[in-house]
Amino acid sequence: MNRPVSLAAACASLSELWSPRVLARVNDQFLKVARVQGEFPWHTHEAEDELFLVLKGELTIGREAADGGAVTLHPGEIFVVPRGVRHATSAAEETWIALIETVTTLHTGSDQTLLTRSLEEQLRPLEPGCAVK
Amino acid sequence: MNRPVSLAAACASLSELWSPRVLARVNDQFLKVARVQGEFPWHTHEAEDELFLVLKGELTIGREAADGGAVTLHPGEIFVVPRGVRHATSAAEETWIALIETVTTLHTGSDQTLLTRSLEEQLRPLEPGCAVK
Repeated sequence: MNRPVSLAAACASLSELWSPRVLARVNDQFLKVARVQGEFPWHTHEAEDELFLVLKGELTIGREAADGGAVTLHPGEIFVVPRGVRHATSAAEETWIALIETVTTLHTGSDQTLLTRSLEEQLRPLEPGCAVK
Repeated sequence: MNRPVSLAAACASLSELWSPRVLARVNDQFLKVARVQGEFPWHTHEAEDELFLVLKGELTIGREAADGGAVTLHPGEIFVVPRGVRHATSAAEETWIALIETVTTLHTGSDQTLLTRSLEEQLRPLEPGCAVK
């Protein structure tokens, strides 16, 4: 990264829902962005925390009741799902989010779902000129 | 963290400039917020990358010329200073930023400056009701 990158411009350049794209690496974490709408399946990351930041829209993170139930994030709000907590995300309207995850985190946890994207897919470059200012 | 936290509300609750405060931990990284204005001294983190996100205002990150010179971030933009790159930050007007750093990162690198804040200072809770929605 040799120039600043706009999180919103990066989201705007994504053509697919629920398909996180890596924007930056900081230490052993990736910062990813995604456009989401509808429901993402329940899953667990046994060994990794996951941080969510909402950029636009509204994201609901369901957690199993023992872990505190659902929370809803609005633009500019963050929330961390600790390792081991089974969770699912949903958005009624189109919502843009940023994520911080360990480079090895599988975004659907140990479950392989129709929405699972490989790390190679997540590392594809964004369309030229869209993300980088 | 049991409820979403607003990055802007957390910044608004800070009373001191250049005094980062930890909002969340994700894996081995801290997400911090800070209010900044003026100039922060040149320093290097030999072993750790540092990610900046501007929330409000404008942040200039000076890098030694060999590493690409200065970049300026606007709201919603991110930039990563890789480990080993000597850098300094400045803001002409009051600027609110979020940072992602390894939990062990010293924010002035190996230099002890008048602006150095201990990790204990950075981990002090924010004023009740300000940061947590």
